[in-house]
Amino acid sequence: MNDSTSTRLPTVDASLYPRGDLDVLSREEVARLRDASTGGMHELLRRCALAVLTSGSANDDPRAARELYPDFDIQVQQRDRGVRLDLYNAPAMAFVDGQIIRGVAELLIAVVRDLIYTATELAPEYAGELGTAAGVTDAVFRLLRNAGVLQPGDPNLVVCWGGHSINRDEYEYTKEVGYQLGLRGLDICTGCGPGAMKGPMKGATIAHAKQRRRHSRYIGITEPGIIAAESPNPIVNHLVIMPDIEKRLESFVRLGHGIIVFPGGVGTAEEILYLLGILLREENAQLPFPLILTGPTASAPYFEQIDRFLRLTLGEAATACYRIVTGAPAEVARDMARGINHVRQYRIEQKDSFYFNWSLDVPLAFQHPFEPTHEAMAALDLHRGRKPHELAADLRRAFSGIVAGNVKEAGMRRVEELGPYQIHGDRDMMQALDALLRAFVEQRRMKIAGEYRPCYEIVA
Amino acid sequence: MNDSTSTRLPTVDASLYPRGDLDVLSREEVARLRDASTGGMHELLRRCALAVLTSGSANDDPRAARELYPDFDIQVQQRDRGVRLDLYNAPAMAFVDGQIIRGVAELLIAVVRDLIYTATELAPEYAGELGTAAGVTDAVFRLLRNAGVLQPGDPNLVVCWGGHSINRDEYEYTKEVGYQLGLRGLDICTGCGPGAMKGPMKGATIAHAKQRRRHSRYIGITEPGIIAAESPNPIVNHLVIMPDIEKRLESFVRLGHGIIVFPGGVGTAEEILYLLGILLREENAQLPFPLILTGPTASAPYFEQIDRFLRLTLGEAATACYRIVTGAPAEVARDMARGINHVRQYRIEQKDSFYFNWSLDVPLAFQHPFEPTHEAMAALDLHRGRKPHELAADLRRAFSGIVAGNVKEAGMRRVEELGPYQIHGDRDMMQALDALLRAFVEQRRMKIAGEYRPCYEIVA
Amino acid sequence: MNDSTSTRLPTVDASLYPRGDLDVLSREEVARLRDASTGGMHELLRRCALAVLTSGSANDDPRAARELYPDFDIQVQQRDRGVRLDLYNAPAMAFVDGQIIRGVAELLIAVVRDLIYTATELAPEYAGELGTAAGVTDAVFRLLRNAGVLQPGDPNLVVCWGGHSINRDEYEYTKEVGYQLGLRGLDICTGCGPGAMKGPMKGATIAHAKQRRRHSRYIGITEPGIIAAESPNPIVNHLVIMPDIEKRLESFVRLGHGIIVFPGGVGTAEEILYLLGILLREENAQLPFPLILTGPTASAPYFEQIDRFLRLTLGEAATACYRIVTGAPAEVARDMARGINHVRQYRIEQKDSFYFNWSLDVPLAFQHPFEPTHEAMAALDLHRGRKPHELAADLRRAFSGIVAGNVKEAGMRRVEELGPYQIHGDRDMMQALDALLRAFVEQRRMKIAGEYRPCYEIVA
Amino acid sequence: MNDSTSTRLPTVDASLYPRGDLDVLSREEVARLRDASTGGMHELLRRCALAVLTSGSANDDPRAARELYPDFDIQVQQRDRGVRLDLYNAPAMAFVDGQIIRGVAELLIAVVRDLIYTATELAPEYAGELGTAAGVTDAVFRLLRNAGVLQPGDPNLVVCWGGHSINRDEYEYTKEVGYQLGLRGLDICTGCGPGAMKGPMKGATIAHAKQRRRHSRYIGITEPGIIAAESPNPIVNHLVIMPDIEKRLESFVRLGHGIIVFPGGVGTAEEILYLLGILLREENAQLPFPLILTGPTASAPYFEQIDRFLRLTLGEAATACYRIVTGAPAEVARDMARGINHVRQYRIEQKDSFYFNWSLDVPLAFQHPFEPTHEAMAALDLHRGRKPHELAADLRRAFSGIVAGNVKEAGMRRVEELGPYQIHGDRDMMQALDALLRAFVEQRRMKIAGEYRPCYEIVA
Repeated sequence: MNDSTSTRLPTVDASLYPRGDLDVLSREEVARLRDASTGGMHELLRRCALAVLTSGSANDDPRAARELYPDFDIQVQQRDRGVRLDLYNAPAMAFVDGQIIRGVAELLIAVVRDLIYTATELAPEYAGELGTAAGVTDAVFRLLRNAGVLQPGDPNLVVCWGGHSINRDEYEYTKEVGYQLGLRGLDICTGCGPGAMKGPMKGATIAHAKQRRRHSRYIGITEPGIIAAESPNPIVNHLVIMPDIEKRLESFVRLGHGIIVFPGGVGTAEEILYLLGILLREENAQLPFPLILTGPTASAPYFEQIDRFLRLTLGEAATACYRIVTGAPAEVARDMARGINHVRQYRIEQKDSFYFNWSLDVPLAFQHPFEPTHEAMAALDLHRGRKPHELAADLRRAFSGIVAGNVKEAGMRRVEELGPYQIHGDRDMMQALDALLRAFVEQRRMKIAGEYRPCYEIVA
Repeated sequence: MNDSTSTRLPTVDASLYPRGDLDVLSREEVARLRDASTGGMHELLRRCALAVLTSGSANDDPRAARELYPDFDIQVQQRDRGVRLDLYNAPAMAFVDGQIIRGVAELLIAVVRDLIYTATELAPEYAGELGTAAGVTDAVFRLLRNAGVLQPGDPNLVVCWGGHSINRDEYEYTKEVGYQLGLRGLDICTGCGPGAMKGPMKGATIAHAKQRRRHSRYIGITEPGIIAAESPNPIVNHLVIMPDIEKRLESFVRLGHGIIVFPGGVGTAEEILYLLGILLREENAQLPFPLILTGPTASAPYFEQIDRFLRLTLGEAATACYRIVTGAPAEVARDMARGINHVRQYRIEQKDSFYFNWSLDVPLAFQHPFEPTHEAMAALDLHRGRKPHELAADLRRAFSGIVAGNVKEAGMRRVEELGPYQIHGDRDMMQALDALLRAFVEQRRMKIAGEYRPCYEIVA
Repeated sequence: MNDSTSTRLPTVDASLYPRGDLDVLSREEVARLRDASTGGMHELLRRCALAVLTSGSANDDPRAARELYPDFDIQVQQRDRGVRLDLYNAPAMAFVDGQIIRGVAELLIAVVRDLIYTATELAPEYAGELGTAAGVTDAVFRLLRNAGVLQPGDPNLVVCWGGHSINRDEYEYTKEVGYQLGLRGLDICTGCGPGAMKGPMKGATIAHAKQRRRHSRYIGITEPGIIAAESPNPIVNHLVIMPDIEKRLESFVRLGHGIIVFPGGVGTAEEILYLLGILLREENAQLPFPLILTGPTASAPYFEQIDRFLRLTLGEAATACYRIVTGAPAEVARDMARGINHVRQYRIEQKDSFYFNWSLDVPLAFQHPFEPTHEAMAALDLHRGRKPHELAADLRRAFSGIVAGNVKEAGMRRVEELGPYQIHGDRDMMQALDALLRAFVEQRRMKIAGEYRPCYEIVA
Repeated sequence: MNDSTSTRLPTVDASLYPRGDLDVLSREEVARLRDASTGGMHELLRRCALAVLTSGSANDDPRAARELYPDFDIQVQQRDRGVRLDLYNAPAMAFVDGQIIRGVAELLIAVVRDLIYTATELAPEYAGELGTAAGVTDAVFRLLRNAGVLQPGDPNLVVCWGGHSINRDEYEYTKEVGYQLGLRGLDICTGCGPGAMKGPMKGATIAHAKQRRRHSRYIGITEPGIIAAESPNPIVNHLVIMPDIEKRLESFVRLGHGIIVFPGGVGTAEEILYLLGILLREENAQLPFPLILTGPTASAPYFEQIDRFLRLTLGEAATACYRIVTGAPAEVARDMARGINHVRQYRIEQKDSFYFNWSLDVPLAFQHPFEPTHEAMAALDLHRGRKPHELAADLRRAFSGIVAGNVKEAGMRRVEELGPYQIHGDRDMMQALDALLRAFVEQRRMKIAGEYRPCYEIVA
């Protein structure tokens, strides 16, 4: 869509006077903001800003962007009237005849807003808050409110999960589902990258235009580690950068009124286990929470495999939490619209807010990052007989650790040094997990250098 | 984008209570509207309504639509509160869970509005008005005003002309030009069908979203004979149905602040000659009117041929009216934006309105339909030495007649009965015309059954 | 409120480029408008414009205004972009630092709009239309639509009638009623002059501000003969100038969803008889139409006398059409809100529009002006036994004629020349009428030179 | 304007679900809010809420209100969806048919919002902030921002100061000045009580309606001690409750783009000295700050006396800071509009914000409350030769102390116990001050029990 990403890679220097989120700041706030942006946070700010400025480029890989624009820099300047953002050697593709594209400017301001908020507002109270689940939830709430995504209005936000590298058939399907959702007046929230995170927004855009909806919300929720790898697609009009993966996941489940899962890789599987681990808790038993796993007809085997794995590990009860639909976008959308209507009724009865799912019980264990050390992996308890939601939580961790041992630098090094993880669990469960991972590799949903070799051993 | 155009072709019965254009009518107006819609106009209304209701289908051919929905009907009912539209056996694809898509409803109401206006408001005064150029222009003005497309606001409307069946490369190029226009805050007006009439709107939609423009205008101007063949694409949010081709052409040149011509066939060539016939008049010599002929790099030969033909026939002076740019979408958009800025300055200086180009002189000869009888063709005068604008007008007519003799049923029959048209003109000019037509046939821009054979003879 | 109406009476020359109602006109329309404004209509335009430009002056008498600004003139100029209004020697009080007050400009444009519409659009079809009640109603509808007062939205328009010269106590009461109506979200429509036509608007303004209603409607409906005598008060934000008194009255009863009558003089009595003459028709028997006669506690005797007169002449049945409330503004407003809610229900059931009371039957006899010649007066039939609505109509005419014979120049001359009117009617009815008139004179609601002397004789 | 303040004094129980300011709160915030409102703050909340609920009553004295509604109570309840305010035995005059008047509800929510903000957000950081001028200013900024009165937009806010009990002539004059300001598109900010704090808003309301300004701001800034005595007038649509008098004064001078001073009593004189003490500082020498002292022609002597006093004490230089205009409302408004235009230019040049006057230097001494003990009064230094701005500050304190010694309970007791204040100052200056106070007493601008007797002695 843009004819400037030629070999020359032109750049632009520019200054921005943010409107909206950053325009009524006190002198002290501006000073803190400037200090934070020149301190340890500066490299993070630079990286996220570059991801946003190259949004929508043919090449969706922001790491390439960093190599292509090595001299790019961003500075936050203090003015009495507020803040000025100075951009140096910024990608020309974000500009039209010297003027920054307005949507890009908005995303850029969102980056500054969220990084600063996290650094200055969340920091002092952070330590204490981490101690309780309610405290973390409150922090998530305040971040989302500060980002302006907690708006009154009828429930209509569908979270879409799925892989960022899916095949053409699957991508077209996500667009079609987005189109059908959009026709029914539903807004879209995703992880804000390409693939299954872009398709639904694109489809919804066309549908919203046909339905003459002019104030649709395309919310992208990311975190510093992910935005570097998955540049926000150009349709996103509300970008939120949460401080870590767990707060990002909690944002999805508290903001969204329903969730659709498209085909994806390991990350998507983790997300499903995270959500089931929450929904299977007794505290959440009465909560309506529409969850649909869907893809084109050709993806049926993929979902059957997921389904088998979930039944085997979490038991038949788990299947009550989700529905699998293949090759029927309109049905998915109709079903989701119906489900969200139940959510609406429930919130009204419970006097709960529409814009934040306060009633959902998310325990501290789901809010803390899981660090896959050998000790932590050995501490997992993957035996039948545990409560399904506890098992789901440990399965998610096992998953996360195995993936790290296979593809993440730190994990691979650990396994090389200390040998395979020792995991305590029932053999059939572990075999099912193994089969799932191999299938991901075969379907090219998980990228492995060389042949796949398990990085763990089962200890009964 | 729609999963309902399967073999079953489901239909829906529905009633619509129009909002906006048709909601504050007097009892008498409603009665006239109902009468008109049940009289001779009913078949026309039915056909146009069906074209709109199948807008955006995979199959863009509304004739197919008529065969697929043979039982479709539309009735206008009178209510004290206003009008009700009853639809019978309407294509289900225009509905979502029983509710008509709002944009489709708007287009449908536009169809009723314009057909009725033409039938009831224009009719009585018609005869008298046809006598003067000013009268016809006034009728065009009132139709456009009634359609709600004459809005105050800075000049920013780019008319895009070009073929409805262009190749993939050309289509992508029209999207890219639309994108670049959209980035610069320009709105799009086209003939509202597929191909070069859809691409620019699609590109502009993405760009407008990125620039957060929420009230963009995608105007489609058609006429009863064309809408049957070229169903409005789903992006159009202002549809106008002019009573005939000449009033449609006048609408383009009076509404638009600049014109971009993409590759096309005979129709596009006629449009270029129509416009040059106007712009070359002395009365219009001072008027700024940006006109750019553009296509992808591969289209360069196409435009060179057009250019040669225009130079040969109308003289070098004609080339001052247009600019040819290939393979440079951003440059086209920048140039158009600059040109429109001149238009703005000029209108301010001349105290002319922004929304209707009153100053443009369009003589009666351009407002009357040309009927290509053998007498009319024999009366053309295609010799050098005539004023360029008069020659352009006759060339357009010759073009129109030759096309009719080759591909239109009535024309082909006439030629079969009475032999080839006898055209008076300079031999080289006629040969150039012939070469152009052959090229269109070769490039599949003009569809011919069998081999191409000239349907005319040149009489010095 | 304005410090410029000193003895010097400063004036201003200015040009206006109307926005809104007059900004998208065809060349021909502009030409007709200019012609009309320089022809016979010019003096009328000048007079009405001056009334508007002196709106809100301490001195509410526009005749004085004409003497104070003898050199004032207004010209309508044609521009390609539309219309320009040139004002010469205009009252400086309508301007702030050389800029016309925006509300005054809007009223001025309304004057031009309505006079022109009447002169150019209504004229040609007028003759034919006068023949049928439906035709006149249609003309009223089109005038009101052209004036932009037919807006969708829930019924909430209360018409307030009453005298323009009422005492302080009564004026304060009309303000209080307006305040109570405004608190309940009701809008106000009056004859747009001072007194009972200003008070309710003033009270409603304060209440609307307290209820944070930002788009309230203060509609003033006048006609050329009245605007000269009753300059629109400055609160009016929608001014409509109907061509004559009968169309003005019909506008009130078709636009308003309920009517409140405050104390007034002969004009107010005529309005009551006009309305009862309509409401007592069998055709309107089922129509809900809230009608409240109200004033401060001290006005109770006034309404008792009216009530007695109506009972005596039209019979007890007539009292079912109205309710008399004194000294209870909140109750009046509550009752009116309830009544309008019934109107809303009824219109929904009947599928009638909210913005125009199509269902109300107004016969041609009520639409034609009554000219009180001796013949016409002698033709009245004021005997018991007639249908109440016919009697009401003739009573209104008798009233109108007697007033003319007493205070209007033409009527007084006629009586002087030809002797008293000969009226055929029951003696007691005529005596009641006489008593009513005498009371008006005593209460200074009717201004008489010298002593009151009946201008008629009763012929059994 | 309200017929329910009869002797019976009806009351209403009601629940409110706040929209806007209080609708997106975290659970923790709601809990803190509820706790604060039931703790020590509850009586304050109750008193302020009652003042708001009786706003616009005939009797403007909220102390009377407290006696009239002894059982009134307000409770803040926590709900998942947000907050609910429960009102018990609330004045019926704030309701219409059981529904609270929307504007009153907005003011009530403002009360809760500001008291809570002060109690929960300001409290923890308070101690530290009090140490620096920048810290206090930052606190003022954050309170105003939280109250939603820091809005981008061109400078147009005029602060009006003056007495709450002024004579009819003066009151009409303040209305006329407000009208002239409103005609010029200026908004009004006052101390939100009656008299000179209501008149300008009332005049501006009419003018804004005539100029069709629909989003005007009528800002009232008060503090807990004052709101109890001066109930917000019903026109105020933005109410802010600052924690103390000094922060309220700083809000006026940082928010307003110009200040108009009408006749008033001691409080008004103190305000003038406060402002001159700031404007006379060298740091503020370049700052444009329009300041006009104005009243009806009859007030000329009043302002002459003030002027003489200022010249005598602060020197001729002080007169450069203000302009005195009498009997010329339009001139005052024109002058103010011009002055604000200079402010606008200056802020643009200095890149200062439009909505908060960061550049104005307000030293800590002006931010701290002055407690008029005998020691503090003895420490004042009212001799010529000091810098005018320091002298102005001490004069303000002397003024404040003398007033306290004369009319405030605590001050009178102190003087009774310890004898007259001993003030060090030049004799002529002290005599001038004395003369001023006597004049206030004579003109009934200061209420004294019995005869006026100085409560101080001068010590050279």
